[in-house]
Amino acid sequence: MSENWSLGEAEFNLEKARANEGLFTLGSGYMHVRGSLEEHLANAPQNLSYMRRPANVTAEAFPYMPVKWGVFVPGIYGLHPLMGKELANLPSFLSLTPSIAGEKLDMQQGRIENYRRILHFKTAALTRSFNWQTKQGAEIQVRYERFISAARPHLCVQRLTLMSDQDVDCDLRAGIDTDVRTSGYDHFTASLFQREALNQINCIVTLDAGDVVSQRACLLLEGASWNYEASERRADLTTTVHLTANTPITIEKRTAMTTSIDPETPPLVALLSLDLDYAALFQEHAGVWRERWENADVSVEGDGESQLALRLALYHLMRAHPNDSRFAIDPKAYAGDAYRGLYFWDTEMYLLPFFLYTDPERGQMLTDFRINTLKGAEFNAAEYGYSGARYPWEGDTDGIDQCPNWQYRDHEVHVTADVVYGMIHYARAMNNPEYLQTHAREVFLKTAEYWLERVDWRDGIDAPGLLGVMGPDEYAPITNNNAYTNRLVSLALEAAAALADDPIFGAKCAGVAQALPILKRSDGLVLQCEEFEALADIDIGALWKDWDKPFAAQVSQERLYRSKCLKQADVLLLMALFPHEFSDSEVALAWDYYLPYTTHDSSLSPGVHALVALRLGMTGEAWSFWKRSYGIDLHGGAEEGLHIAANGMLWQIAVFGFGGLHSAMYAETLTLSPTLPAQWKRLAFPVIWKGQRAFIEMTASEVKINNRSSKALPVSVHGQAAIIPPGSSMAFQIGR
Amino acid sequence: MSENWSLGEAEFNLEKARANEGLFTLGSGYMHVRGSLEEHLANAPQNLSYMRRPANVTAEAFPYMPVKWGVFVPGIYGLHPLMGKELANLPSFLSLTPSIAGEKLDMQQGRIENYRRILHFKTAALTRSFNWQTKQGAEIQVRYERFISAARPHLCVQRLTLMSDQDVDCDLRAGIDTDVRTSGYDHFTASLFQREALNQINCIVTLDAGDVVSQRACLLLEGASWNYEASERRADLTTTVHLTANTPITIEKRTAMTTSIDPETPPLVALLSLDLDYAALFQEHAGVWRERWENADVSVEGDGESQLALRLALYHLMRAHPNDSRFAIDPKAYAGDAYRGLYFWDTEMYLLPFFLYTDPERGQMLTDFRINTLKGAEFNAAEYGYSGARYPWEGDTDGIDQCPNWQYRDHEVHVTADVVYGMIHYARAMNNPEYLQTHAREVFLKTAEYWLERVDWRDGIDAPGLLGVMGPDEYAPITNNNAYTNRLVSLALEAAAALADDPIFGAKCAGVAQALPILKRSDGLVLQCEEFEALADIDIGALWKDWDKPFAAQVSQERLYRSKCLKQADVLLLMALFPHEFSDSEVALAWDYYLPYTTHDSSLSPGVHALVALRLGMTGEAWSFWKRSYGIDLHGGAEEGLHIAANGMLWQIAVFGFGGLHSAMYAETLTLSPTLPAQWKRLAFPVIWKGQRAFIEMTASEVKINNRSSKALPVSVHGQAAIIPPGSSMAFQIGR
Repeated sequence: MSENWSLGEAEFNLEKARANEGLFTLGSGYMHVRGSLEEHLANAPQNLSYMRRPANVTAEAFPYMPVKWGVFVPGIYGLHPLMGKELANLPSFLSLTPSIAGEKLDMQQGRIENYRRILHFKTAALTRSFNWQTKQGAEIQVRYERFISAARPHLCVQRLTLMSDQDVDCDLRAGIDTDVRTSGYDHFTASLFQREALNQINCIVTLDAGDVVSQRACLLLEGASWNYEASERRADLTTTVHLTANTPITIEKRTAMTTSIDPETPPLVALLSLDLDYAALFQEHAGVWRERWENADVSVEGDGESQLALRLALYHLMRAHPNDSRFAIDPKAYAGDAYRGLYFWDTEMYLLPFFLYTDPERGQMLTDFRINTLKGAEFNAAEYGYSGARYPWEGDTDGIDQCPNWQYRDHEVHVTADVVYGMIHYARAMNNPEYLQTHAREVFLKTAEYWLERVDWRDGIDAPGLLGVMGPDEYAPITNNNAYTNRLVSLALEAAAALADDPIFGAKCAGVAQALPILKRSDGLVLQCEEFEALADIDIGALWKDWDKPFAAQVSQERLYRSKCLKQADVLLLMALFPHEFSDSEVALAWDYYLPYTTHDSSLSPGVHALVALRLGMTGEAWSFWKRSYGIDLHGGAEEGLHIAANGMLWQIAVFGFGGLHSAMYAETLTLSPTLPAQWKRLAFPVIWKGQRAFIEMTASEVKINNRSSKALPVSVHGQAAIIPPGSSMAFQIGR
Repeated sequence: MSENWSLGEAEFNLEKARANEGLFTLGSGYMHVRGSLEEHLANAPQNLSYMRRPANVTAEAFPYMPVKWGVFVPGIYGLHPLMGKELANLPSFLSLTPSIAGEKLDMQQGRIENYRRILHFKTAALTRSFNWQTKQGAEIQVRYERFISAARPHLCVQRLTLMSDQDVDCDLRAGIDTDVRTSGYDHFTASLFQREALNQINCIVTLDAGDVVSQRACLLLEGASWNYEASERRADLTTTVHLTANTPITIEKRTAMTTSIDPETPPLVALLSLDLDYAALFQEHAGVWRERWENADVSVEGDGESQLALRLALYHLMRAHPNDSRFAIDPKAYAGDAYRGLYFWDTEMYLLPFFLYTDPERGQMLTDFRINTLKGAEFNAAEYGYSGARYPWEGDTDGIDQCPNWQYRDHEVHVTADVVYGMIHYARAMNNPEYLQTHAREVFLKTAEYWLERVDWRDGIDAPGLLGVMGPDEYAPITNNNAYTNRLVSLALEAAAALADDPIFGAKCAGVAQALPILKRSDGLVLQCEEFEALADIDIGALWKDWDKPFAAQVSQERLYRSKCLKQADVLLLMALFPHEFSDSEVALAWDYYLPYTTHDSSLSPGVHALVALRLGMTGEAWSFWKRSYGIDLHGGAEEGLHIAANGMLWQIAVFGFGGLHSAMYAETLTLSPTLPAQWKRLAFPVIWKGQRAFIEMTASEVKINNRSSKALPVSVHGQAAIIPPGSSMAFQIGR
């Protein structure tokens, strides 16, 4: 159990620097900071300005930067003239830089040995240690430590320990830099520095969207006398310390942050928690994380890389959760600005399950977020000329759609049903139907109102249709009766019918819910949409020249839009969500038909394929999609932030897929039909099933369930039903 | 014949001012100037900055401005950060303003009587006369005159004549103003003024797209001594003249313009033509226009408004032609910046016919323009990943696509076939097949190369298909086998097959040409596209709240795109172009089916409906679509410039429709089947038929053809064939 609890970096490699900056992101939910170097690099300006434009999201290319700072607070936006609101990259406060005899520490230009950077999952801490051979001839042992307190979410704590092999003077510089950009744009309309006490810098920035962000950095080094240097966009404290040979010294930097949208704003100086020392703060922080891991860790034996990828995924899922139902989790998990920190359907469909089964309280915050933004959804519906509520494709914290590309914003209406799916999932997973009747009720009724206006009844066709929609497959832009969308909308309308007071309205909802078609070909193939078979056949292999880039970056959008090529398979996703509604042969038919057309340009795609492959017993395919899925971020994809939905899928593949846990969406009893990969000797995970805690362990031959709750727990393992008494374990032998 | 040779304005009305500024545009082909007031208005700044964004072209709204200056030179672009290249609004040089006792002349604030502004079609001159009662008590007779020389296209000549009923001093001010915007954007990176001689201002502006424009204004007033006043963006010459009671004085202002893209640039001072007086310049100018009208005028007796609308249309068509095959005619006819002065399919399909049958030399310049921009079309094809040539949806003078909206740019591929249609039309109308074998050959072969790659062959379908296209109806964005597009592409491929040296390539072209389907429903209805019947039914009447605004401005684009509502009827346009390929019952079926869905949001729509109504013998409908078509600009629509394609259609309705001339696209002999409206006593027009000049007159009972050529002219009138000897006339009685 002690293995693979950390992500290590054995050398500083400029080519991997930006991706690792994403992977090494720390965060408290309240604030998130990319894993940038405290001393920074030469030739890596962070104030490069350019104008980002609305574009095909898959094919968009960003200007190259070797590293990219990122400090984010959920809900703090800038207002981009072309893109709409975007999560603002806030002032960078990490800097803590030693220089010796005029030589600034530098991972590229300096002589660095025994380098090791480690992200410690258990404690959500980042450390970096190395030996620095200065030009002047001293050998300095350097160690950086950093955490953002899970117990005090406004506080980031850093520490730098230096020990020289000879007596040298060391210059130190640490400060706050506001000369940063968000995707090339400067969102700060004002930037104000002030020295507070002798060892503190106060920084206030005003954003173009109206919010104000304050930071207070404090340097702790006994006996040091700090000088203050400030320019328009940066302020530093500097000092010189004497390093006595072989005697370590430690400098601590604490930064506290508040914003104008905080519900309450204690003084920054209080948030610095100067009454507590580093050890106390760290212990308190690590305690929160210990509990998180106890409730969530998925343990894999026999396959270090899978274990590492899973823990990395769970770490970022737990880290990115804002702990505040005013916010959700953006697609980059607050570790980059590629998707502008807005909220997509990923929240409900890819992220929520992990929280529902491990930390339902935080799961509910995510569904509550949609309830809290119902007003925005009503605004969106009205903007389009409809009654009711229409959830945004790219939502801000008010629920207003900020998506600048009409093809997505206008047509990916499934998000409005996905939101309802998420609430149903929460209510079922927690056995809490009352949630739907109280908190969520308005969402169900208002979105149903929208759907009733949004469906079309066509002459000569008995059934209603949802026309002009884009399903999750964004390469089929404007289609009729998308299978995924229709099924989700049916679910939402059925649920609304059950909640409606007005019987006529209820009957309408139920009628449409029942009649919205899932189109099938004569041979039983579930069709993605009415038009799918009329699309052009396309030789994907011939057109896909460079497999390192998405398919969409190599063909025109016009060709994507008219051809049988999928960004991700809608129909398979539908079957993964509603496995009980499709026969094995239907699933196999869909697999065989759609897979050759699927580019997996979406990071959401491989995970769905892993789940469906497992359903079909194709363990080889499942394994390869599993590896592909976890490789997305682990193997260099986190430059612009995490692919957090894909990380959410890792948990689903491990628990729902390999672990075989049936989702509460269709199982009443805790039901397991595991299919462990040959490489995995043991899989173990905790789960909360309808409010009851259980711990599940499995090998190739046995499944063991420990009922950690105070009630009897009915279970079913590979068809063997049983009831496990409170506090007891039960083992099930597996015949194959 | 002397009636309706002018467009008059009997009072200055601020609400109509901007539309009339469009209608009163003068131009030499080389340069074009909106009909703005020489003295301007108070409270109408021309430097209002805003950021135009790519948007649905039909629903786009522009900020209100009471009047809007416009000075345009074809090919002189600015580079807009979001929209791409756009025709730049150049410095305004019209100002010529009297003030008396500190009171500046002002149409709104002054006391003005006997106001009359007239656009003289025959001489392409604008005059304005009125009496001005000054506050000080003088009564001044004022007369402005203005023309842009058709004989000296770089030269604009203005004149102001003042006569007072009492002795007064009059201050005069005249200059050049560079503080103007193009759709809210300032394209001038430098603006330089210099006084030249004592009575001349030189102005040079550099544009952000790289071109340089020079203007020289010269003031002519005997004995005047001019003062020079210059600020950063404006320079003026001022003087004071004494008006002796009842003695007129005349001030002349000439402005010459050159640009860095002129093939040769004579000195501006030479272009001012100071050796010639006003009368000589005017006579020379009027001579060019006399000849134009002789070859083109369509005379209507018995219906003054139709006559006025027709002459206004022909005036603007002849005025807007650039006389230079490096350029074409933009949709606003160089009289506004709404469509950014780029070149669309309108050129071939709506404008070219008028020139082909009245001024084929200028007609050829328009087809040559596409030949000259073949390199750009090849670039566009490559940008999309295809071989061959793909003409731009919104082309600049290099043929590069500048359309900022992907739905139009990506999918309105029919333009590439329309270009070929235009060349075939030219070759047939002029009986010049050699043009296709020489000049146009590469265009045919290169565009065919593109089409062969652009068509798709789908499994299980024998025919090739053009998938993912938008036809002229822009409310059906991405559709398969659009009838209009397929027919045009077939025509283009058939023609390419005939020109191909490589027999395999030729056979491929011919094969696709023959096999591209025109889809028909079982009852014979020609379908706009594969998807049409699957679109949603829509209650257009219920959704269209404000009939003064386009339908598209009142419903979401998402609804437009999924519903049976047409911006203009593709299928009817197809039938108007290829009337011989469809039976009357097919046309009637299409009319009945599509008309209820057609919003006519496009100014191109009513004219096509007039032609098709005539084909069907529905004279009442034809008359109402005729009136609707000519009302577009005549009744207030010219604010952002003319709808020149609709004006081109007026000629087609009059000559092809009411006049019944069969297009050379399907007639070998000059063939007439007129249907005069009851309101028209007589219709007469000249025509050039395959190189032979003829003059046609018709009444309800007789058609008379005068063969003005030196060869015998075979004709056919309502089925009566005859051959008219050179120089002779022949009359045909009409039985009904």
